[in-house]
Amino acid sequence: MRSIFWESCSVKLIDQTKLPEKLEVVECRGVDQLIDAIKKLSIRGAPALEAAGAYGVALSAFEKEFSNVEEMKRYLIEKAEKLKNARPTAVNLSVGVKRVLDSALKGRSVDEIRKIALTEAEKVAEEDVKRNKMIGKIGAELLEDDDVILTYCNTGKLATVDWGTALGIVRSAVEVGKKIKVFACETRPLNQGSRLTCWELMQDGIDVTLIADNMVGTVMKKKMVKKVIVGADRIVRDAVFNKIGTYTIAIVAKEHKIPFYVAAPTTTFDWDKCSDEVVVEERDPNELIYCGEKVLAPKNVKVYNPAFDATPLSYVTAIVTELGIVWPPYELNVPNILKNK
Amino acid sequence: MRSIFWESCSVKLIDQTKLPEKLEVVECRGVDQLIDAIKKLSIRGAPALEAAGAYGVALSAFEKEFSNVEEMKRYLIEKAEKLKNARPTAVNLSVGVKRVLDSALKGRSVDEIRKIALTEAEKVAEEDVKRNKMIGKIGAELLEDDDVILTYCNTGKLATVDWGTALGIVRSAVEVGKKIKVFACETRPLNQGSRLTCWELMQDGIDVTLIADNMVGTVMKKKMVKKVIVGADRIVRDAVFNKIGTYTIAIVAKEHKIPFYVAAPTTTFDWDKCSDEVVVEERDPNELIYCGEKVLAPKNVKVYNPAFDATPLSYVTAIVTELGIVWPPYELNVPNILKNK
Repeated sequence: MRSIFWESCSVKLIDQTKLPEKLEVVECRGVDQLIDAIKKLSIRGAPALEAAGAYGVALSAFEKEFSNVEEMKRYLIEKAEKLKNARPTAVNLSVGVKRVLDSALKGRSVDEIRKIALTEAEKVAEEDVKRNKMIGKIGAELLEDDDVILTYCNTGKLATVDWGTALGIVRSAVEVGKKIKVFACETRPLNQGSRLTCWELMQDGIDVTLIADNMVGTVMKKKMVKKVIVGADRIVRDAVFNKIGTYTIAIVAKEHKIPFYVAAPTTTFDWDKCSDEVVVEERDPNELIYCGEKVLAPKNVKVYNPAFDATPLSYVTAIVTELGIVWPPYELNVPNILKNK
Repeated sequence: MRSIFWESCSVKLIDQTKLPEKLEVVECRGVDQLIDAIKKLSIRGAPALEAAGAYGVALSAFEKEFSNVEEMKRYLIEKAEKLKNARPTAVNLSVGVKRVLDSALKGRSVDEIRKIALTEAEKVAEEDVKRNKMIGKIGAELLEDDDVILTYCNTGKLATVDWGTALGIVRSAVEVGKKIKVFACETRPLNQGSRLTCWELMQDGIDVTLIADNMVGTVMKKKMVKKVIVGADRIVRDAVFNKIGTYTIAIVAKEHKIPFYVAAPTTTFDWDKCSDEVVVEERDPNELIYCGEKVLAPKNVKVYNPAFDATPLSYVTAIVTELGIVWPPYELNVPNILKNK
């Protein structure tokens, strides 16, 4: 099952807030329901949100009857705006919305607009899966039989439409018959590693062991890990932005001479920017003070809780994209691969 | 208030399982109650457990009437055994028990035994506080005005009888008027950093900011931290054993050329041993699968959950003891300082 898909005029998605306890599919029969699901983080992960935005516009074309095309277009534009604001900082959500809306607005009848919107939304989802399978296939060549991979956060099917980026490489290697084991870091404070990555890999029968983020040093020192693969939220000229904690892992990997790979589609590159131009959002202190009902810290304690960190490219062994593996020197090889986009 | 103390024929201790939500003092009127408190981790931390063992033997001498000295001694020996087994791997607990029991058994009357046991127990507690204050005073010289210290786990008054080791250095520096800020890592999976260290420092009005363990790289890169001070569970010829996660911090500190200090009494040295002779206990997988009522991972996921890690001494800038600061080369300077014990 994909993390998000279209079925009988509705958008269905795996409710990630219920995992790992329950596998529950939310059925959104209207855009407002989908917006709700996005706001509640029932679906998250940049590529998955791009598809959510795309399907959302299609949903707005199907959810009611329209008396004429103009009324329909006004409705689509209005709903698209609401959809984008469901998570204003998630660039990919807007990208998905814009792409389907722009196409749909070219339609000349209610039926044509519906057809265009749904076709384009399915294309967005399809492209994501295809891209991930390419990343997986290309990246799998870096893995050997009996490799043990350390990964971080969730970069699997749940973060994308299907297959995943860093986890997609693991899946592809397993698919071609390689024996791969995975260490998943819990990824504090939101535990995407323990909640989602462990669940996904266990569903697929891939050998996974959960560790706390602070155990990375120990598993590397004991030679329990052979390679690191992580995802990326944005790759700029001098650094990879990814979930907070990635940089610490990169340092520890370098110290133990363990390859540190980044897996990401070429859409992740923002090559005109440098890391000091990127503003990293700070998240709610309560993420560290509470865990469910449990109080983990004094309620008025000061908390520093950035969402992402920047790993300098000098720590990155290679970047796996759908167009090939990019090796250093990145200042030369990234522009070269981006030319082929 | 000390973390453990004697008052009107009972042992009183701060219930650390209730922190940071409630400051509650448990009153143990009998050894069995104290054993219960130790088992439930109402009191933890090597030096605090040494005092608990010591006070426990005294408690067994006071908790009932004895018809003769022989009966009393038999009772003390029996209770001492139970006390030691409350946490069999906690060496310090046994050390405290043995010391007071050995002294008490020299007594020739019920009253004399009571007096000896209580005096010796108070001595154990007093010595710990004195030792910590010396570590604090000596270590404070390493800190400058406006220093920002990163610390790990809980090494404060709650882990000792009072003052603390690594946190004791911070306290002593603040006491002599230096302006010090602290970053406390939450210390997964049991969150002694968020639950106990943050609480302690806030109680004392010392500026503390909570971070997740994986944020160490980021705060160091951003030059938000000037020095690291951690405690130690055991120091062998080639490494410092301390709470899992310490080694990862040491690597990241080295990468950013940030001094990494260890604070520990000389009783922590086990200089005849090497790290490969030390067996590290693995703890319950459920510590990573649950957080209170909340399920953080699939219930049958494989978990690797070692309690401690070993930081090679090459990562350690200096070791602060109650007898002075030990600088490298440790193979020379540790035996020198241990001679003065």
